[in-house]
Amino acid sequence: MVCEILSIGTELLMGQILNSDAQYLSIRLPALGIGVYRHVTVGDNPGRIREALREALERAELVITTGGLGPTEDDLTKQMVADALGLPMELHQPSADAIAGFFERIGRTMTENNMRQAYFPRGAHIMPNRKGTAPGCVVERGGKLVAVLPGPPHELSDMFEQQLEPFLHARQSDVIVSKYLHIFGIGESETETRLSDIFSGTNPTAALYCSPGNVMLRLTARCRQAEEAGALIGPVEALVRQRLGESVYGEGLNASLARCVVGKLLEKRETLAVAESLTGGMLTSMLVDIEGASGTLMEGHLTYSNESKRRVLGVSDTTLATRGAVSEETAREMATGARERAGTDWAISTTGIAGPGGATDTKPVGLCYISVAGAKGVWSRELRLHGDRARVRLMCTLNALFLLYSRIGE
Amino acid sequence: MVCEILSIGTELLMGQILNSDAQYLSIRLPALGIGVYRHVTVGDNPGRIREALREALERAELVITTGGLGPTEDDLTKQMVADALGLPMELHQPSADAIAGFFERIGRTMTENNMRQAYFPRGAHIMPNRKGTAPGCVVERGGKLVAVLPGPPHELSDMFEQQLEPFLHARQSDVIVSKYLHIFGIGESETETRLSDIFSGTNPTAALYCSPGNVMLRLTARCRQAEEAGALIGPVEALVRQRLGESVYGEGLNASLARCVVGKLLEKRETLAVAESLTGGMLTSMLVDIEGASGTLMEGHLTYSNESKRRVLGVSDTTLATRGAVSEETAREMATGARERAGTDWAISTTGIAGPGGATDTKPVGLCYISVAGAKGVWSRELRLHGDRARVRLMCTLNALFLLYSRIGE
Repeated sequence: MVCEILSIGTELLMGQILNSDAQYLSIRLPALGIGVYRHVTVGDNPGRIREALREALERAELVITTGGLGPTEDDLTKQMVADALGLPMELHQPSADAIAGFFERIGRTMTENNMRQAYFPRGAHIMPNRKGTAPGCVVERGGKLVAVLPGPPHELSDMFEQQLEPFLHARQSDVIVSKYLHIFGIGESETETRLSDIFSGTNPTAALYCSPGNVMLRLTARCRQAEEAGALIGPVEALVRQRLGESVYGEGLNASLARCVVGKLLEKRETLAVAESLTGGMLTSMLVDIEGASGTLMEGHLTYSNESKRRVLGVSDTTLATRGAVSEETAREMATGARERAGTDWAISTTGIAGPGGATDTKPVGLCYISVAGAKGVWSRELRLHGDRARVRLMCTLNALFLLYSRIGE
Repeated sequence: MVCEILSIGTELLMGQILNSDAQYLSIRLPALGIGVYRHVTVGDNPGRIREALREALERAELVITTGGLGPTEDDLTKQMVADALGLPMELHQPSADAIAGFFERIGRTMTENNMRQAYFPRGAHIMPNRKGTAPGCVVERGGKLVAVLPGPPHELSDMFEQQLEPFLHARQSDVIVSKYLHIFGIGESETETRLSDIFSGTNPTAALYCSPGNVMLRLTARCRQAEEAGALIGPVEALVRQRLGESVYGEGLNASLARCVVGKLLEKRETLAVAESLTGGMLTSMLVDIEGASGTLMEGHLTYSNESKRRVLGVSDTTLATRGAVSEETAREMATGARERAGTDWAISTTGIAGPGGATDTKPVGLCYISVAGAKGVWSRELRLHGDRARVRLMCTLNALFLLYSRIGE
């Protein structure tokens, strides 16, 4: 099934917001066996919305619109969809009751504008909005489908997952099953090279999704019965794991190194302390972003100066004087010091030169040391990272998380 | 001038990357007096690129393409632009020499594919690429302009700012001048209400750009001479500052609370320590993201547990027992303790309940305390924040930075 995504909103054309809705849908739809062939964005202008809808309906079997559903926008999108499909607008009584009930509950007078949210193109399948007031809908006509979704990303994703996804799924004669694997420590192009035969496969199909420091592989199988999917994906997944080894660290759309570290520590009921220098709170913050992190992360320190490293973490004067702040020994003493003082099972440390300043003849920008201290020992790594300040800090943070993750399991 | 942005890349349609290029250009172009009417994204497919180009050229005077310039993509974009405009492709000798020189320098054999990067539609104005290998170009024909830019965001922004922006600027008979003001502590809708008359103005025009916790106002004046811009923008800016007071904290496209705090501290040669609880490294990390931060930020601590708050920061047992970890007194002692121990001019602290767990009858999710300690005193604030865990942490962090910023100036 060929799909186009039509985003509606002047704020997108002004650059006031990023079109994350189009990206979200573009990640999700191929997992349903639906190909996205075009994204189009137009402003809140009836003529241009109608024109864009007509063009999209000529090319695609499924058009998904995002945005233009709020009461201030006069429900422009639904009216234009009705126009483009040659359908009248009709009142949907359950939606009208829900909107009236909402205003009664909050004790405010409902304006006529609000009631327009209860009108839909005739015959539309209504999708209630659990996260906002404007319902969405799916309209079918002449072999074409138009799905109307709200613009706010949390409303859109909820409506898609709860309603549009099952609706589209049920229309596919085949079952589509996807599996996501997360990879660290092998770059995008190296991963592509090692898995080149897998990318040319047709069932499952494979695609890589890369963001800075993160590579995610999607394997999607198409079959008659859900039970057959395992037999299609299993052997390919085994091949991927064999070729990439322990670089494959996580599964599922929402996996991340921080989530895997926090999950494993909580599962083992072990605790963690963090001592950062160049990464400056990034490592700590990435862990704290995960719900439940405060159950395992006990303490964190940012120690830039030698004086801080000594007073807060107990790094020795001798080490700082003879090896310097950017050295394996310092990273080691930062980790062991943080662990002992906080009384945690694990501690993790980073030290290095993020740039643009700070380099010396023997210590270039990008030179970093990371260390993990646990009950069974201390492990350290030297990293030579490339890129700007932000990238050096990010890659050092991710490498430290990956080192910790590989040790916790042992 | 009416503009459309045509993004080319299958990776955009697969959701593998977010279309930040379209947003970047959509923010920049209105400041040149150019209106963006449509964004279109198509994959690396000759037929669909050609079709999309023809459609765009029917509607717009300026079409900007992004992506599809790399050697592996066979320079599809430039060839399709030449096709759409009915122009032959011609070798651009300086570009050919530059590419040959590049391969000579790195000591590798140049493939024929690479030399295709030196071909352009006849008569094109070439824009060298300072950040990558593929040059861009601007082609003019029949009153229409097509600008071809590379896809990687850092290549695109450099080529736009260094070359396309001045090129477009020079073609405008008027001078367009923009000023950006950053606002904190007043929400988007409140800002809109207070400035409603300003948004209906025509010279300067005004637009709000909102991201979580940040509101930026753009004022754009159009005039005959650059010197006249001040007379147009000045009175409106004064009105904005009068109505929003000290909520207007920064100027320029790249301003942020963290950047303003670091800048002011460096200017005054004053130092800072940070003590975080619920914000968990976010405050520290936001400061360290700014170049030069290590010249003012001396030390940071994440202290979740009472034991950590006591041992690391010196919060008293009595305070923790009688007031609790989430209290103004604890925030105050965290800030004073961090300042004294690190020996800095300033210290800043956060404590609160990010949720979803941790609430009590008297302390709901979103209750936070922030505190700033300096040579002249200690200032604290109670915050009652709404939203999910990520939003509570972000808003607490930004409020703490804003409190600090307003104190440093005094």
